[in-house]
Amino acid sequence: MVKAGIIGSTGYAGSELVRLLMGHKDVEIVWYGSRSYIDKKYAEVYRNMFEIVDAVCMDDNMEELADQVDVIFTATPQGLCASLVNEEVLSKVKIIDLSADFRLKDVKVYEEWYKLEHKAPQYLDEAVYGLCEVNREAVKKARIVANPGCYTTCSILTTRPLVAEGLIDPNTLIIDAKSGTSGAGRGAKLPNLFCEVNENMKAYGVATHRHTPEIEEQLSYACHQPVTINFTPHLVPMNRGILVTAYASLKPGTTAEEVRAVYKKYYDHEKFVRVLDEGECPETKWVEGSNYVDVNFKIDPRTNRIIMMGALDNLVKGAAGQAVQNMNLLFGFDEDEGLRQVPMFP
Amino acid sequence: MVKAGIIGSTGYAGSELVRLLMGHKDVEIVWYGSRSYIDKKYAEVYRNMFEIVDAVCMDDNMEELADQVDVIFTATPQGLCASLVNEEVLSKVKIIDLSADFRLKDVKVYEEWYKLEHKAPQYLDEAVYGLCEVNREAVKKARIVANPGCYTTCSILTTRPLVAEGLIDPNTLIIDAKSGTSGAGRGAKLPNLFCEVNENMKAYGVATHRHTPEIEEQLSYACHQPVTINFTPHLVPMNRGILVTAYASLKPGTTAEEVRAVYKKYYDHEKFVRVLDEGECPETKWVEGSNYVDVNFKIDPRTNRIIMMGALDNLVKGAAGQAVQNMNLLFGFDEDEGLRQVPMFP
Amino acid sequence: MVKAGIIGSTGYAGSELVRLLMGHKDVEIVWYGSRSYIDKKYAEVYRNMFEIVDAVCMDDNMEELADQVDVIFTATPQGLCASLVNEEVLSKVKIIDLSADFRLKDVKVYEEWYKLEHKAPQYLDEAVYGLCEVNREAVKKARIVANPGCYTTCSILTTRPLVAEGLIDPNTLIIDAKSGTSGAGRGAKLPNLFCEVNENMKAYGVATHRHTPEIEEQLSYACHQPVTINFTPHLVPMNRGILVTAYASLKPGTTAEEVRAVYKKYYDHEKFVRVLDEGECPETKWVEGSNYVDVNFKIDPRTNRIIMMGALDNLVKGAAGQAVQNMNLLFGFDEDEGLRQVPMFP
Amino acid sequence: MVKAGIIGSTGYAGSELVRLLMGHKDVEIVWYGSRSYIDKKYAEVYRNMFEIVDAVCMDDNMEELADQVDVIFTATPQGLCASLVNEEVLSKVKIIDLSADFRLKDVKVYEEWYKLEHKAPQYLDEAVYGLCEVNREAVKKARIVANPGCYTTCSILTTRPLVAEGLIDPNTLIIDAKSGTSGAGRGAKLPNLFCEVNENMKAYGVATHRHTPEIEEQLSYACHQPVTINFTPHLVPMNRGILVTAYASLKPGTTAEEVRAVYKKYYDHEKFVRVLDEGECPETKWVEGSNYVDVNFKIDPRTNRIIMMGALDNLVKGAAGQAVQNMNLLFGFDEDEGLRQVPMFP
Repeated sequence: MVKAGIIGSTGYAGSELVRLLMGHKDVEIVWYGSRSYIDKKYAEVYRNMFEIVDAVCMDDNMEELADQVDVIFTATPQGLCASLVNEEVLSKVKIIDLSADFRLKDVKVYEEWYKLEHKAPQYLDEAVYGLCEVNREAVKKARIVANPGCYTTCSILTTRPLVAEGLIDPNTLIIDAKSGTSGAGRGAKLPNLFCEVNENMKAYGVATHRHTPEIEEQLSYACHQPVTINFTPHLVPMNRGILVTAYASLKPGTTAEEVRAVYKKYYDHEKFVRVLDEGECPETKWVEGSNYVDVNFKIDPRTNRIIMMGALDNLVKGAAGQAVQNMNLLFGFDEDEGLRQVPMFP
Repeated sequence: MVKAGIIGSTGYAGSELVRLLMGHKDVEIVWYGSRSYIDKKYAEVYRNMFEIVDAVCMDDNMEELADQVDVIFTATPQGLCASLVNEEVLSKVKIIDLSADFRLKDVKVYEEWYKLEHKAPQYLDEAVYGLCEVNREAVKKARIVANPGCYTTCSILTTRPLVAEGLIDPNTLIIDAKSGTSGAGRGAKLPNLFCEVNENMKAYGVATHRHTPEIEEQLSYACHQPVTINFTPHLVPMNRGILVTAYASLKPGTTAEEVRAVYKKYYDHEKFVRVLDEGECPETKWVEGSNYVDVNFKIDPRTNRIIMMGALDNLVKGAAGQAVQNMNLLFGFDEDEGLRQVPMFP
Repeated sequence: MVKAGIIGSTGYAGSELVRLLMGHKDVEIVWYGSRSYIDKKYAEVYRNMFEIVDAVCMDDNMEELADQVDVIFTATPQGLCASLVNEEVLSKVKIIDLSADFRLKDVKVYEEWYKLEHKAPQYLDEAVYGLCEVNREAVKKARIVANPGCYTTCSILTTRPLVAEGLIDPNTLIIDAKSGTSGAGRGAKLPNLFCEVNENMKAYGVATHRHTPEIEEQLSYACHQPVTINFTPHLVPMNRGILVTAYASLKPGTTAEEVRAVYKKYYDHEKFVRVLDEGECPETKWVEGSNYVDVNFKIDPRTNRIIMMGALDNLVKGAAGQAVQNMNLLFGFDEDEGLRQVPMFP
Repeated sequence: MVKAGIIGSTGYAGSELVRLLMGHKDVEIVWYGSRSYIDKKYAEVYRNMFEIVDAVCMDDNMEELADQVDVIFTATPQGLCASLVNEEVLSKVKIIDLSADFRLKDVKVYEEWYKLEHKAPQYLDEAVYGLCEVNREAVKKARIVANPGCYTTCSILTTRPLVAEGLIDPNTLIIDAKSGTSGAGRGAKLPNLFCEVNENMKAYGVATHRHTPEIEEQLSYACHQPVTINFTPHLVPMNRGILVTAYASLKPGTTAEEVRAVYKKYYDHEKFVRVLDEGECPETKWVEGSNYVDVNFKIDPRTNRIIMMGALDNLVKGAAGQAVQNMNLLFGFDEDEGLRQVPMFP
């Protein structure tokens, strides 16, 4: 039985991790970290866990935790994981970091977009970007897994095959993304109040959202050239779900069959990426509660652009589910262990 | 491996049954019945099932089905199950009927409330009312299980212990119930359109809702006297969830401790009924996607009435989850097999 | 042109008052009070007011305000209005208080339910309870109008005619009320976050909600005897709207025609109270954005109880609209001036 | 008093027209056309109109209607208006057509995108495209006003100034649009059910939506060259509102100040178009219930693209409000008569 500790277990991503790990046959959570709720029963913070989780919230003590567990998940604000990790910790446990601390290889890019000094840049090189469909083998051997962002996972899985195969010009890529509100976290802020979000839609972080360089970096690896894109996130009045609509110029003469063949080549053997039937547009509800990403595309012959679409649950494949998938790779479990939830509809 | 067939697999309750049975280790669905979608791929009707269910929808042929499966679930409009069931069918398979056909023992009451002639009244006596927490032993031996209604399950589990123990006067009972919209089914009707339901709340079926006699009958068994109640359902702009607020006159002198002790007596050993901590009001979100029912109460000393509250997911404990629970009893599986979902929040 | 000042103009009720007064031909707002946003442009707090309101938020200085305006609306937390009002202020302006400070005649009841010392009990007697349909003539002559609560307005208008005419036993009255989330205010609190409210329903303040004594007091005036009721509020995932479902024992032998005649007697000449056609249940969406209250009833002959239903928009007839209606009475305007909005559907 | 008739008064756009005209001091509705509800009271179809509209629904007889009214609004499916209009009708009344019949000048384009034979192509030339901010003078003299589509109005007003002034390359324009569900109409169709839309988001009509050629035609007039764009509509779980996010390559060297100056030049004198302050992203809730369009932009120097954003209420400025605005121009009323609603928030 693998022992797991969660630092930041009372945010939405942390609580989703608890939900998923409860159904994982080979893992036991032994540390529910939460600086805000120390000594409070976890089930009093999340009443859905009543009679399911009996534990009490603990402080964020990574060193002590490292002695007690095999894997630490950090579902915390940016900067915390980098400030806690050190060689002694890494000699004892695996770290799966759901924050952005180890996602970008270039510390300058990190510090520019996150406006934070990075406290452990020495681990940037060894940290593995935990997008399992891309870095499966590297994840298995990692000490630190940088769990990708929610927008990023959806954007990359939706567009990467065409970028990698040269079917689209990556520098024409425009990603218009729409997210449910749980992505904004559980902080008590006015813009996240029900009455401010409900019956409302808006863009935010236009041209400045922090997931932009993460998408660009990963796509540049795929095509071996620098990539600069437009990325615009939007807030949608729903709890869960990310929908990505991505636009790019298609290599002249490319047919729908060729595009489909490329998607199939990359994803036919991937359980969690579903290439939908021709003509079907992904819907966030079709993946809710599950680790699936649904992708599809449409070519517009009038403009010779391709519209690529992807949908996932931001708390599962966009956060906690992907973290569990990474953990499964790290410990040699079936990759879908604990992740066999059928999407819940309606 | 138990083989299951579903008649009416493309309604919301039917599709929830598919979702749950996909996660049940001892059951295989071999017949996806759906009169409306014969020969259509199930995953084209419910896209969330893409690459999960490969089957095609079949007709509602109960006799043929009886030869192929061990258990038949009927998630169909009232009247259909009663019109199909017969001795030959019952000699071959177990029937779990999610419609109302076998819930009421008195055929006259059925015909009065449902405005339908009952086609198989000869089985009313032997059918077992499948509220597992009440009729567990009888269910195990049944040929026909009448799966309770969603409002009914929530109303009975919330109030029954106090009725049974004589702590409340059953004829003062007023049940004000609130339901998510999936309870209205997947029929394309104007009142169920998004724009008609969203940002709206209303009562409906006031003093005439068909779940009323079902609640009354079951409560009358608990207190060995006729029970007549008020029951008012309301439509709430959410997909899932039923919340029951029930009012009754409390036996003079009864303390909160005594009431709590009664709830504990009935439910301490029930996995799926959670008696919340003092002062906590049940919320539908805390049980969403799971088979739990959360109950609690508050005494108002000013009026000497008690306010009892209960919450469940209408598609799980209120329909498909309870059906699986009944199936587990029928076939000797662990009662929570396939039903260990942690509630999904948010 | 009547000059109006608003203390607390940046809460939801305050901003609704701004919206309504913008369309009132005889009133000009000259003071947008808001302690939290002093010196900030009002339209930066409420972007819907961009290019409509050009003013800047001011402090809550009632004495200075009294010199500048003819009427002061206080849309503030309990206690503030009572702490500011004095004889000098009252000699200069009319006060319409949207808080609870002057709603209850008995200072002990106020202090018990609100856990606050009342700072101006000397004005409790003269303050007029501003439910226009009940106290129209008294309002016209008032110096202080106590604008009723949202739950209260809906509960009283729905039940009062039958209480007044002795058709129901007031001490059997049970009021189950459901409210949109704007009733909880614009404070940045965790329980009001989108993800906590959306797809969720719960009761709260069970047996302890502060609108209870207000309803009881007003109903006791109607029937000249003390009234004690059950009142249970619920939170609904929608922005606006209150729905009241009220239950009471009907005077034996009373017919639906008699009940309807009583409602008609009280409301036929009331523009803002609509007695719906037989069989129609009020829906909150039918009154959204308007000052209407829709009421209707159903008799359950099986229990001899009557189910009374009412719906209003909590921010209009439940707060700001009623305040404007009171102002119209105070200044001799048409009672519906500024209140002719047709309900917005969908 | 201008007499108005509405053909198609029981769709969502038709009923919004009723709501707005009820508040217009110079207009009286004398004909509530609705083929589906002939002889039914209008207020029974839309209960919000109870005690406000007393009329009964009539058939769609344009010739009879022409004798009784001064202006006819057709809020009907494509094809109907074109099939009814003729010289005699036009000699008697003004027509404001909310369908697409007279929006496109080229009958071949109409027939290709709408898959319909056009029954009155002889009026295409004289019909005026009723986007008041663009064609104000022409509207005043028109016999037939082609009221623009909801997506179209938002897309054109958001992007047209920059297209007209040559600041963006129109053939790089990508419009990603998000709409509330009332845009899908009041038809009882499965995809519009509450449970299918709520908590869900999807694109639809990708590369084939009928508003595409309408946007292209109008933008081509602005820049005097053919324009081909990408347009992708999305369905959002809310009742009202359209949000447009538009991307285009910016003329090299253009500054934000220059862009802002262009928007100001076009819209400073337009009451209904609000150019938001720098850095503010339009939100649909800020215009709900009103005739406003909010626009703004952000330049991304990394890609040298500009992101233009616009928001409106699809039923007001996107349909009925714009129709009233056109009527005001036709009859010489103040352009904002009946359209002074302050946006409703929350």
